[in-house]
Amino acid sequence: MSEQLATSKAGHHRWSDIMPEPMNPLLSRQFVSGEKGMAARILLKKGCIVPEHSHPNEQIAMILSGALEFEIAGEKIVVAAGELIVIPADVPHSAVALEDTEDIDFFAPPRQDWIDGTDSYLR
Amino acid sequence: MSEQLATSKAGHHRWSDIMPEPMNPLLSRQFVSGEKGMAARILLKKGCIVPEHSHPNEQIAMILSGALEFEIAGEKIVVAAGELIVIPADVPHSAVALEDTEDIDFFAPPRQDWIDGTDSYLR
Repeated sequence: MSEQLATSKAGHHRWSDIMPEPMNPLLSRQFVSGEKGMAARILLKKGCIVPEHSHPNEQIAMILSGALEFEIAGEKIVVAAGELIVIPADVPHSAVALEDTEDIDFFAPPRQDWIDGTDSYLR
Repeated sequence: MSEQLATSKAGHHRWSDIMPEPMNPLLSRQFVSGEKGMAARILLKKGCIVPEHSHPNEQIAMILSGALEFEIAGEKIVVAAGELIVIPADVPHSAVALEDTEDIDFFAPPRQDWIDGTDSYLR
């Protein structure tokens, strides 16, 4: 009964109430997760490199300010403010911040490795 | 072979290249869909009412500017810029725009009713 109540209740969050997790000196991360999807706010300083990695989660990255140069399955794609990129599940990708950047990532399903803290490629 | 290529290819999109769909005089919508999730950009004018509805898709709404007053399973929750709300699957909800509002909605899985145009509650 309590589980059913918990999953039927909306969760209200403020980015300013969620402590940014400094993954390395140039990247911090916040996230809010549901059961089927997760929204993350990633702040990257210019020059930040996210090494190549892949995950079974589909990712939709939406850039609010700045720009990231992704390399996705060998193709370089600059994604700037007002733009999005859909990265299918299991496709290897990396990114370089061309400017200080605010990126919103949506994952489906949620990133269990982030929830568990087993995301060593970012640390 | 071509299907496999298609699903492994990243999709790059600009909100400014996607024609906003005017659902009613106070609400317009754009969306970008993957296979597992969908990101939508909803512009609501002050006073816009989204009538109560529900869907099997989990929804994470993130307000970029303005504010929406949601009513979710009978509870009123104001969600303002910099805030998010996670609405579990199948939970009835409605919303009123307290100001002109830019809302980003992330759905998992994608809203098939939007893709098919069978979303009469918005029209």
